[in-house]
Amino acid sequence: MKKTNEEYSLLYDYYGALLSDRQREVFELYNEEDLSLSEIAANLGVSRQAVHIAYWKACGEMETFEEKLGLIAKHAEYEKAQAETEAKIDAILKDKTRAVLVDPDVAKTLRRIKKLVKELDL
Amino acid sequence: MKKTNEEYSLLYDYYGALLSDRQREVFELYNEEDLSLSEIAANLGVSRQAVHIAYWKACGEMETFEEKLGLIAKHAEYEKAQAETEAKIDAILKDKTRAVLVDPDVAKTLRRIKKLVKELDL
Repeated sequence: MKKTNEEYSLLYDYYGALLSDRQREVFELYNEEDLSLSEIAANLGVSRQAVHIAYWKACGEMETFEEKLGLIAKHAEYEKAQAETEAKIDAILKDKTRAVLVDPDVAKTLRRIKKLVKELDL
Repeated sequence: MKKTNEEYSLLYDYYGALLSDRQREVFELYNEEDLSLSEIAANLGVSRQAVHIAYWKACGEMETFEEKLGLIAKHAEYEKAQAETEAKIDAILKDKTRAVLVDPDVAKTLRRIKKLVKELDL
């Protein structure tokens, strides 16, 4: 199934570095700069068909990288765990009935942990 | 600079999936099974030189993947943040003078956070 431009942009964030310079150029002009295949062909001095092939080859390679490395799938798992961790810490910090509020060291540590977990990102 | 077998094994854990079947076969026989290049050549019915080239090409490709994606470098940052988070939570949980111990919900939440952070791994 063909992906949306947004999905290809996400793949590009993770795997763009593994494409060739030409593939990156074509991908960015088409997917980020929103030029047409014909405009890109004119800019690069190649045929429209060559641009079309380069674009879809780049997309196919990035899909294969995700199948093999699964970084985007892992990132989604992380975000879930990060959100749960943050919500749990916020719930403790905000609950006025908690003993933790009379212990500033614990509150400080919890804020530090929240920051650490937030920074953990793929 | 040439890396150690352990360093190549780590690269293989992250990027082995991106190698060809033949490269993976040669890499595993040489680096994990500890066969000699000549033994691998005899097993696969190719020249010793072909095995040598396949092995070093695989290693070079994996080094390039790490230069471009940096997953191992990121993993090291994660481990540092994870270790700090775990140590901080353990310190709170073990300190008998802490108010947190009289609040079983907070202790439970902290254990859950520790588990979540431990599971966050590349």
